[in-house]
Amino acid sequence: MYIGIDLGGTNIAAGLVSDEGKIILKDSVPTGRERDAHEIVRDMAELSKKLIADHGADISEIRGVGVGCPGAVDYSAGTVVHLTNIKMDNFDLAAEFQKTLDLPVYVENDANCAALGEYVANGNSAESFVFVTLGTGVGCGIVLGGKLFRGFNGAASEAGHMTLIMDGEPCNCGKCGCWEAYASVTALIRQTKAAMEAHPESLMNKDAEERGKISGRTAFECARAGDEAAAEVVRMYTRYVAEGIVSLENILQPEIISVGGGISREGEYLLGPVREYIEKVRFNRYMKKTEIVTASLHNDAGIIGAAMAARV
Amino acid sequence: MYIGIDLGGTNIAAGLVSDEGKIILKDSVPTGRERDAHEIVRDMAELSKKLIADHGADISEIRGVGVGCPGAVDYSAGTVVHLTNIKMDNFDLAAEFQKTLDLPVYVENDANCAALGEYVANGNSAESFVFVTLGTGVGCGIVLGGKLFRGFNGAASEAGHMTLIMDGEPCNCGKCGCWEAYASVTALIRQTKAAMEAHPESLMNKDAEERGKISGRTAFECARAGDEAAAEVVRMYTRYVAEGIVSLENILQPEIISVGGGISREGEYLLGPVREYIEKVRFNRYMKKTEIVTASLHNDAGIIGAAMAARV
Repeated sequence: MYIGIDLGGTNIAAGLVSDEGKIILKDSVPTGRERDAHEIVRDMAELSKKLIADHGADISEIRGVGVGCPGAVDYSAGTVVHLTNIKMDNFDLAAEFQKTLDLPVYVENDANCAALGEYVANGNSAESFVFVTLGTGVGCGIVLGGKLFRGFNGAASEAGHMTLIMDGEPCNCGKCGCWEAYASVTALIRQTKAAMEAHPESLMNKDAEERGKISGRTAFECARAGDEAAAEVVRMYTRYVAEGIVSLENILQPEIISVGGGISREGEYLLGPVREYIEKVRFNRYMKKTEIVTASLHNDAGIIGAAMAARV
Repeated sequence: MYIGIDLGGTNIAAGLVSDEGKIILKDSVPTGRERDAHEIVRDMAELSKKLIADHGADISEIRGVGVGCPGAVDYSAGTVVHLTNIKMDNFDLAAEFQKTLDLPVYVENDANCAALGEYVANGNSAESFVFVTLGTGVGCGIVLGGKLFRGFNGAASEAGHMTLIMDGEPCNCGKCGCWEAYASVTALIRQTKAAMEAHPESLMNKDAEERGKISGRTAFECARAGDEAAAEVVRMYTRYVAEGIVSLENILQPEIISVGGGISREGEYLLGPVREYIEKVRFNRYMKKTEIVTASLHNDAGIIGAAMAARV
């Protein structure tokens, strides 16, 4: 049994996870991200203790704790290097955690954790596995031979920041034209808004007014209802997604590419056209083909994956 | 001692290679690429026998033969699946070779071989190493932990076919906007021709007339001579090269990215601006940085790498 912790900008979510990667019990507390790093990590450890107690387990039954962090970490040192939205620069998270709860602690990047979680949920056996998550940004994790691929410095798999259209849309990373700037849900909302302005008659305007917001689902739902402008937004968005996936396939030829994030709940409505495009343009004509699948864990991927990151 | 064979569309180049990856003796014969596969492979084996005899060596001193092939191979089976310019579909190259010369034979993709050769020449120790070759196309090979990364199907590392500009220039692979369609020497020549037409006053026109041809060097040489239009071709070409390299860095974070191919002889004139751009836009701000270097083996990379592919 392991503890997996998903450190987010809003909540700290933690779970007791079985050796096979199933959540036994989970709980969460607010991150309070403006607080001192020591307090945040103490809360992680207290939440872990609570989970153990609530399950009536003994600390000796826990083989390790994995913590998924939104940013740069030094996995081998167990330290946080820099997080995007939490002040935790060059912080020895493992040592601080152990002051409250003395267990082996593994510090990992959150997209890597999610990839590991999806890999385990997918059967824990793919020769190579790439997880792509379409959310506020485009996250990615790579699992080779059952182990996370981290690059020589621990910073690998930022596929969201490969260029899709050189000198295109500005990206948060400082470069222009990144895949993330076209295939994230943030980008989809931008594309939806532009289409709504260009097509005042589109159902998307009525839908957004009724719901009081524009979301990643606006275009997909209106396209399903027969709206032309929405269908065009969906057509282009799926092309952006597919174009990045086929690049990853051509470079890595993983056995499986798994697509997650809230928008992946659109299932075949998203992945159908993605597969159809890739089928036409993939470089590999002669060998076995990469399988493109929808991720299965949704919000639990972070907790399960963090726990699996402690399964070393 | 190993034998490395670089099977090209024009020549079969072979070499005796030391365990450390140095060429002891090399030789070549024409491929005769329109011939039957059996004849081509017999010539490979005969050339290998000649090398052994010329060096006064005994067959027992040869630990294995590696063959780098321009196309899709099944490394584990020792077979060729499909080559671009040689008729050798689904051909058991290893078995055929052994009819003439009974040694362990390893069949590998030629870009993978070149990557392995450059990896060995670079010190044989990088944690992770990506080789990119800018030639007729853009080839790539990935070495992780001293071993070629092949993907689950042996077809990985086709980085030339990641998208650089979605829906951009058509690529030979059938997709549009591939890195290869902008960063290959073929693309550079296309870019040079376009600039020559747009700028009849450019030195490039005079240079091409004098030499009787336009090559990958035309723009570089005229830029060095102070020609504005040529400098602009070089500026854009180095951006295309850099843009693909930074994508690879963001995804793989290899310790070293090595750039080869004839145009890499431009050295810092090519790599200087590439590094400068990557320095500005790379995603990794907090961890150790990938080093971008010029390849060192040039034409021998294929022979040495093929030999090293037999060093298993």
